[in-house]
Amino acid sequence: MGTKVAILDSSLRDGAQAEGISFSVEDKLKILELLDDHGVDYVEAGNPGSNPKDLEFFSRAKNITLKHAKLAAFGSTRRHNNTAENDDNVQSLLLAETPVVVIFGKSWDFHVTDIIHTTLQENLKMISDTVAFLKARGKEVIFDAEHFFDGYKNNPEYAVKSLQAAAEGGADALVLCDTNGGTFPSEVAQVVTAMSALFEVPIGIHAHNDCGMAVANSVTAVENGARHVQGTYIGFGERCGNANLSTIIANLGVKRDFECLPDNQYRNITRVARHIAAISNLALNERDPYVGNCAFAHKGGMHIDGVNKASHSFEHINPDLVGGQRRFLMSEVSGRRMILEKIWEVDASITKDDAVTDSIIKRLKELEHEGYQFEGAESTFELVIRKQLGKYRPFFELEHFKIIGEQPTNGEYGSSAIIKVRVDGTDEITAAEGDGPVHALDCALRKALDKFFPELSNVHLTDYKVRVINGRDATAAKVRVLLQSTDGDAVWTTVGVSTDIIEASWIALVDSIEYKLLILEEAKCSM
Amino acid sequence: MGTKVAILDSSLRDGAQAEGISFSVEDKLKILELLDDHGVDYVEAGNPGSNPKDLEFFSRAKNITLKHAKLAAFGSTRRHNNTAENDDNVQSLLLAETPVVVIFGKSWDFHVTDIIHTTLQENLKMISDTVAFLKARGKEVIFDAEHFFDGYKNNPEYAVKSLQAAAEGGADALVLCDTNGGTFPSEVAQVVTAMSALFEVPIGIHAHNDCGMAVANSVTAVENGARHVQGTYIGFGERCGNANLSTIIANLGVKRDFECLPDNQYRNITRVARHIAAISNLALNERDPYVGNCAFAHKGGMHIDGVNKASHSFEHINPDLVGGQRRFLMSEVSGRRMILEKIWEVDASITKDDAVTDSIIKRLKELEHEGYQFEGAESTFELVIRKQLGKYRPFFELEHFKIIGEQPTNGEYGSSAIIKVRVDGTDEITAAEGDGPVHALDCALRKALDKFFPELSNVHLTDYKVRVINGRDATAAKVRVLLQSTDGDAVWTTVGVSTDIIEASWIALVDSIEYKLLILEEAKCSM
Repeated sequence: MGTKVAILDSSLRDGAQAEGISFSVEDKLKILELLDDHGVDYVEAGNPGSNPKDLEFFSRAKNITLKHAKLAAFGSTRRHNNTAENDDNVQSLLLAETPVVVIFGKSWDFHVTDIIHTTLQENLKMISDTVAFLKARGKEVIFDAEHFFDGYKNNPEYAVKSLQAAAEGGADALVLCDTNGGTFPSEVAQVVTAMSALFEVPIGIHAHNDCGMAVANSVTAVENGARHVQGTYIGFGERCGNANLSTIIANLGVKRDFECLPDNQYRNITRVARHIAAISNLALNERDPYVGNCAFAHKGGMHIDGVNKASHSFEHINPDLVGGQRRFLMSEVSGRRMILEKIWEVDASITKDDAVTDSIIKRLKELEHEGYQFEGAESTFELVIRKQLGKYRPFFELEHFKIIGEQPTNGEYGSSAIIKVRVDGTDEITAAEGDGPVHALDCALRKALDKFFPELSNVHLTDYKVRVINGRDATAAKVRVLLQSTDGDAVWTTVGVSTDIIEASWIALVDSIEYKLLILEEAKCSM
Repeated sequence: MGTKVAILDSSLRDGAQAEGISFSVEDKLKILELLDDHGVDYVEAGNPGSNPKDLEFFSRAKNITLKHAKLAAFGSTRRHNNTAENDDNVQSLLLAETPVVVIFGKSWDFHVTDIIHTTLQENLKMISDTVAFLKARGKEVIFDAEHFFDGYKNNPEYAVKSLQAAAEGGADALVLCDTNGGTFPSEVAQVVTAMSALFEVPIGIHAHNDCGMAVANSVTAVENGARHVQGTYIGFGERCGNANLSTIIANLGVKRDFECLPDNQYRNITRVARHIAAISNLALNERDPYVGNCAFAHKGGMHIDGVNKASHSFEHINPDLVGGQRRFLMSEVSGRRMILEKIWEVDASITKDDAVTDSIIKRLKELEHEGYQFEGAESTFELVIRKQLGKYRPFFELEHFKIIGEQPTNGEYGSSAIIKVRVDGTDEITAAEGDGPVHALDCALRKALDKFFPELSNVHLTDYKVRVINGRDATAAKVRVLLQSTDGDAVWTTVGVSTDIIEASWIALVDSIEYKLLILEEAKCSM
């Protein structure tokens, strides 16, 4: 068993400072449960003093029994010339009723004198008072030494005193923060080594990515004695983001012998990262280490050849270790293997030499050439396979639809759609209005199918993404539409491509409904 | 003057190995000129041996007189049991007629025996022969030691011998490659220090980002004696990408005293990065250090307050140094300053206390609340200001339009549009077809306006981007449409937001045309 490194995820607090991030209380609860299941040690989930909305989250989070993680509230030291007891911010930290409190305080003398305008001595008392007050209330207290590295450069003696103040107050960890993200790994190595030697209390690291080195700074800190790492799971945060924990955990726990997660959790790193991205309504960066879609994608011919001879020739780890998937781009041989696995999910009797395997591969290649992309659209992928295997029948036929968009609008909606469908010889024609042509079409199709398939009533779309495939042809460019649907339980994604956004949406919409009906039918047959 | 560090950009070679990258010869020539203007030392632009299309690029690149950069072709050592003279790959390197050749060879014994299947001795001869052959033809030769760090871990003696072979052949630089991207900064520091002590020939670094530490590895290498850095300007490349040169150059040249670019070029880092992203048809990652849209964006209230008191309190550098822009998100005070600068571009006499300044800010806030985003849509931003200042008149009025989308399609196109506009009391009604509703509308509008404004004939759209603002409402979500237009000379961008994609596109389309007509009118008035 390797040396334990505690992981504190701040996606819900420092991560919420990122541009474009706006969590609902439900989002936060979902991420908390995900990180707890994953075995993360601490989840820092809000700043009740500066954001009263966070108190609602904490009061709901109390009802959740966490398996592994400890919940932490975040706030600053008491204000100057006050007591911790009488400080509103410190009081609201108690209201959060978390077992852990993270307190940040000033370590950079310039910030004390020029930003919060107090004396160097009073700042040290603010730190020790606040930590001691919270310790006396039974909290585990983590001290975040803000701007520690800048402070240490400017006035090392004072920066160390700020840590001493926290240690004297009884802090359980002293976290060196690179708040501005301007520190280099060589500096981190030197400072962490010195602080680890100076203090009995465990040293932590909190890095930002303004120089693109937050992961390296965190890893370097641990190599030099830090035993607590703060970051956000997929790296979002103020400005260029916080240290990316998914990368750090894989670096330390998979490539090195540190214990960051329970043993059986490293394989979930990719899944957890993608899930957090989905809840946060962010696209995961394709080139993110370990978890991005390209992380184990090989394009160069020599690389593909090498990986086929010995995977470690061009891969620094086996992708299985983090639940990732090797992908060979534009390579027939390798594509075949991956496609076969999908075929077996539908029909385990097919072999790689069957003619139908060739026909499926040919069809997928045609579609990819047209601009389809099946990563993230597994339901359409499965329908393509079923169509080639003859394991598919259309549940309805489109006779025609017409969409009318107009300006000025006639009343509430700018778009309306007429649709005529046929199900088992029976025609149904109907119309609906909507915000925009796709919404109108979606509403009309569901309305038309309702009398034939009432079980579709609980299906609805949860995401609609449009990607222009080749932006240079402007409005005549091809678009790829990804639709995510749910029946409240399962979630499935379908894709359509066309130069016409309406046609692309239509294709994805039909696949979404056909897929749901197919699954329902199979469930009935197997009963 | 700081210590010189040579920069080799491989966007056009290793970068082209990235998923989603596909350069035309024109794209490559544009990037070459951009990097040359920027003062990058070497542009590695292709592998003529493995990609015959690259030879077309090299034959066209010959006609360009470069101001600073040296062009480099990339290829492997001769094959085993052959001479360099008779090796096809080496010959095609000569055909490229570049002053510089980058040769990669094997430093990891396992790759020699198990991947290219030759003897350790023969591999060393392949390296020294190939380098010597090219040196004898007057080339500057850079040796890329593939998998150097993995090789050094496995068999340090042999890895060093591979460098010695290149040095004996006359190589001008010995570049240690972390081909799999699995090396940590602490290892880089140790190995680079050792190699710098061992060789007179300058040591270089070529890092990949599989552990999220390519930038840190490159910076650490330079701190420990490397004087040549390879990467790609915005970091794209095989798998998780190459080391991001824009970050490395800013780290070394702006935050430290190394000389990576001519002094006056650091301010262009952001512009060059965004330009390369545009040519590569990639969205620049918003959180990229220095050059991303969020790099100097402050959201936390305490951070905004701190930056206003002293910018270095929460910024590791002044954004001006890399041509970036500080942004305060959702902050009235700071927004005002930025908006005033834009207002002055239209009317320099307005002051911050004028009532109209308030009305402009109020209007912008309303629009932002509706989902507008003016970053990257400066023309719409300018039109908003002009409307509030009364410095705007509409050039045409929409009477109405109707768009019809249908399936099955009638012939070539699925969409058609009818539009009626009024210009100075004269009505014009017309119709057009298109791929999709927006294309049809765009064609119809241009056709209707043609008789009034023939000068619009050279305007066309060059990019069309659709972003779903809140994906969770699915097809009823708001969409933001960004249109980029050009008249062959200027380029301008406009934005529209609506729950209806057609309405959002229409808003952006109208702004695009109004903006062009406004600029034309002002040009006439000032003649």
